[in-house]
Amino acid sequence: MPGRRRAALINCLSGFKSANLLGTRSASGQDNLALMSSAVHLGANPPLLGFVFRPHSVPRHTLENLTDTGWFTVNHVHSDIVEAAHQTSAKYPGDVSEFEAVGLTPEFTGDCPAPFVAECRIRMALKHEQTIPIEANDTLLVIGRIESVQLPGGCVGEDGFVDLERAGSVSLSGLEQYHTTKALIRLGYAEP
Amino acid sequence: MPGRRRAALINCLSGFKSANLLGTRSASGQDNLALMSSAVHLGANPPLLGFVFRPHSVPRHTLENLTDTGWFTVNHVHSDIVEAAHQTSAKYPGDVSEFEAVGLTPEFTGDCPAPFVAECRIRMALKHEQTIPIEANDTLLVIGRIESVQLPGGCVGEDGFVDLERAGSVSLSGLEQYHTTKALIRLGYAEP
Repeated sequence: MPGRRRAALINCLSGFKSANLLGTRSASGQDNLALMSSAVHLGANPPLLGFVFRPHSVPRHTLENLTDTGWFTVNHVHSDIVEAAHQTSAKYPGDVSEFEAVGLTPEFTGDCPAPFVAECRIRMALKHEQTIPIEANDTLLVIGRIESVQLPGGCVGEDGFVDLERAGSVSLSGLEQYHTTKALIRLGYAEP
Repeated sequence: MPGRRRAALINCLSGFKSANLLGTRSASGQDNLALMSSAVHLGANPPLLGFVFRPHSVPRHTLENLTDTGWFTVNHVHSDIVEAAHQTSAKYPGDVSEFEAVGLTPEFTGDCPAPFVAECRIRMALKHEQTIPIEANDTLLVIGRIESVQLPGGCVGEDGFVDLERAGSVSLSGLEQYHTTKALIRLGYAEP
C-alpha cells in the first residue's frame, strides 16, 4: 500500500479521537496554537492529561514553548470553529501567531501565562509535568497537570459528568474528518 | 469537590474517546476481554498504538497476558454491542472469561494467539512492542505494533480513509456515556 494511503488508514484505526487546541506562549512572547488529536486521560488524582508529539513536526513550537514556560492551555474544538481550528495545522513560519492567521482570539486569565482560545467553551490551564521519550518511534509523551478548568453553564451534572455534546465539542477520525455526536446510551458502573 | 464527582469530571476533560475491546489469552489458555478508552495513535510507520494501564485495576489480566504471550487484539465497539462491551469492565474473578460472562464470541484467525471478538467489524492483531512506566501517576503506556487489520467491505476509501461511522464504531465520553457520530465536515491538508 502506498505510504500516504497507508498512513491515512492507520490514522483511523485507534477509533474516534478528541480535537483540542493547545495554546502556548514563547519565552519571548510569541503566541502559538496547535491542533492535537492525541489527548489521553492518564488519571484523575492527580489530574493528568498526555499528548503525543513528533519532535520534528509542526507542533514543535508548542513543545518548545510549554517546556520553556512550563504552561499550556487545552481548548476543546467545537462545531462553530472547526475550520479555523483545522487551519492551525498548516506549517506557518515561527514568527506567525496561528491565532492571527486563522482568526481566533488569544485570552489570558488567572495565573496561566499561555493563551486560552476566547471562542472555546471548555478550556483548561495545564502545568507541564513530565515528558517521556517513546523509543519505539522516536516520539514524546508530554504530560500536563490540570490546574484550572473553565466550563460553560449547564454542562456539568450533579455527578460530575460533563456534557461534551451540549458544549458542542467535536470528535475527529483520521487526519481530517470531523464529527458531531449523538448520545446513544449511558451505562452505570458494571457489576459482575 | 468529592472524589467520585471530581474523578467523573476529570474523566471527561480530554474530550471524546474511542471504545475498544482488548482480547488476550493467558499462557494457560484463559481468554480475557477488557474495555479500554485510552487508545492513542502513536504513528503510522511503524504502525503503533498506545494504551494506558493502571497496574492495579481490572485490566491487569490483560496486561499480564499480553506481556506473557506478546500478543493482543483490538476490536472497535459498535452500537449493537455497547452493553456487552461495557459489561466487560465489571470485576470478574480471574478464572472467568469475559467473553462468556457478557455473551461475546472469541474467534481465532491467522498467527495471532489472542482472541478476536467475532461480533466486531474493525479488528486488529497487535504484537506487544514496549511498556513504558509513567512515573507521574504510576501508570503504564503499553505500545503495540499493528500486525494485521480486518475491515468490513465498503468502509475504506481510495485514499485510505476508514469510514468508522459506516462501520458503526462508537465514541465514549467520561466513564460511561456512549455516542454515535454524524459526519460534520471533512477538511483537506491545511496550507498557510
